[in-house]
Amino acid sequence: MSHYPPSLIRLIRNLSKLPGIGEKTAERLALHLLRAPAQEVQHLAESMMHLKERIRLCSSCFALSDQAECDICRNPARDRGLVCVVEQPSDLISIEKSGAFNGVYHVLGGVLSPMNAIGPDDLRIKELIKRLESQTVREVILATGTSVEGDSTAAYIAQLLSTFSLKVTRIASGVPIGGDLKYVDQVTLRRALETRHDI
Amino acid sequence: MSHYPPSLIRLIRNLSKLPGIGEKTAERLALHLLRAPAQEVQHLAESMMHLKERIRLCSSCFALSDQAECDICRNPARDRGLVCVVEQPSDLISIEKSGAFNGVYHVLGGVLSPMNAIGPDDLRIKELIKRLESQTVREVILATGTSVEGDSTAAYIAQLLSTFSLKVTRIASGVPIGGDLKYVDQVTLRRALETRHDI
Repeated sequence: MSHYPPSLIRLIRNLSKLPGIGEKTAERLALHLLRAPAQEVQHLAESMMHLKERIRLCSSCFALSDQAECDICRNPARDRGLVCVVEQPSDLISIEKSGAFNGVYHVLGGVLSPMNAIGPDDLRIKELIKRLESQTVREVILATGTSVEGDSTAAYIAQLLSTFSLKVTRIASGVPIGGDLKYVDQVTLRRALETRHDI
Repeated sequence: MSHYPPSLIRLIRNLSKLPGIGEKTAERLALHLLRAPAQEVQHLAESMMHLKERIRLCSSCFALSDQAECDICRNPARDRGLVCVVEQPSDLISIEKSGAFNGVYHVLGGVLSPMNAIGPDDLRIKELIKRLESQTVREVILATGTSVEGDSTAAYIAQLLSTFSLKVTRIASGVPIGGDLKYVDQVTLRRALETRHDI
């Protein structure tokens, strides 16, 4: 790499800090940018700079937003009585993509993880309680991941919410749709058998 | 993707224009940049902007450079009597990394390719001839690729240089070092047998 001019080396170093981008890929990207039209490179650089200035967290659900309240919270067509609790903004996007949910969200910002010293105060659980106290919510769907940590976070929140007069539900786990049983791991299969239902 | 705020969508779109980066990877990179320290993002964006302003081609060998003449051409320790002709600046870097060459370079900027309408005038062949006329060069090593196009470009240049009183050589091709013969393609093997030498 030391054979490149300094400004190219600097870009390669900065690019290789990105996740999943090693030195070889960074080199290839930098050489591409060198050949790309100046305008394309400028647009990319500007959109990076603007990102940090413009993106904030929605004051209500803590999703990513360009404005004080996110599009979902501002949408009058969404059901405010149904709150889906997720770990990260990316989980919210996955659920939105499925098109199966018409309520609003609450982004925790992570899961309880004693190993990483993440306790209840590090997540937006207080904010969830406050929200449930001030708004009329019918049901809270706990859609944290199905890992041990996701499960225990859901259990913890479910216990906290037991004093509220609302329904608390957990997303189902089991064999993925289109999944071939022989490729499904044992824990998932066991869960799918335990939570079997009538058809 | 449409579920993200506009400024995030813009960054994802711009990132996914890069080679080898699909929409999923662009999404992951954009979300990483969102969480990364503002300074890191700024450095990355700035190094992109500066690249285009600062990098130029060396006036002598056409390698990438921050200055009018590249480091190699300015280095008095390099042998100016030995010129290695390569296709692209990245080929020059590969040879430099090998540490096996102490001469100077000439970057053609491509290979002859009638299929892509690239003729001799699209490459820096005239510049090479001019350089050989004005400088004392002992040997020209043709280090274009070993593809059909690389080979024919080398043959074309070798013919042009036959009027000069200098040695014209071509890099050797054959089985790569550490290569297992059963994984080497037939064309390479045939070439390795044809160009066998005494030991």
